[in-house]
Amino acid sequence: MTRTPGKGAKLKPQVRVLLDEEIALGPGKADLLEAIAHTGSISAAGKKLGMSYRRTWLLVDTMNRCFKQPLVETSTGGSRGGGARLTPLGSEVLTEYRTLQAEVAAASQAGFLRLKKHLRAKPLEAQ
Amino acid sequence: MTRTPGKGAKLKPQVRVLLDEEIALGPGKADLLEAIAHTGSISAAGKKLGMSYRRTWLLVDTMNRCFKQPLVETSTGGSRGGGARLTPLGSEVLTEYRTLQAEVAAASQAGFLRLKKHLRAKPLEAQ
Repeated sequence: MTRTPGKGAKLKPQVRVLLDEEIALGPGKADLLEAIAHTGSISAAGKKLGMSYRRTWLLVDTMNRCFKQPLVETSTGGSRGGGARLTPLGSEVLTEYRTLQAEVAAASQAGFLRLKKHLRAKPLEAQ
Repeated sequence: MTRTPGKGAKLKPQVRVLLDEEIALGPGKADLLEAIAHTGSISAAGKKLGMSYRRTWLLVDTMNRCFKQPLVETSTGGSRGGGARLTPLGSEVLTEYRTLQAEVAAASQAGFLRLKKHLRAKPLEAQ
């Protein structure tokens, strides 16, 4: 058994961009954009992330309604199996969000180390 | 009607410190520490934040089990109405977490501005 402070500690920074009441972009939507870019399909991307088609489509719709131009475009006749891809703006926004995540992760390292030294190696058992 | 890009946009950065499977500290727990410091009572702090006593107590217990020393101590005979306060470590951890939040907020500003210029002033209506 180790006594290293904060041995099992991890920092989980999360950045959401809100537009009025909507979440325009966050970790889940960014992962979805990435999955659409990789799979070329909204349904395949949703499946990859373990989401229902309805939920997947709602996330895409929210992003498309929040940005000046759609981030995702579907090919004509786009039924469930239809193709989808990121627009140029979609690719740009995804890159910018990943950069933002990296900047936040870097900026939080020092503070995390300060907190970590006060943590146990692992939590005490709940009673 | 304005066309200012991202007029209604806000960034919501959130930092959680995990220890194994537990959330040792996050925005809700930090607010709870602050409320306990202000009210001098776990139940009053929970009420202030709209949480059940049970949930409030569980959050306190999780923090106390994750850190090397408890962050919150209750006065002897501590029934529901009993007094509570932050330990010196509790105050220190709260301050460090607020600093971390501020650092993350500062570090995310530039990236937020990059994203914001791609946003509408407000979302299109869902169809």
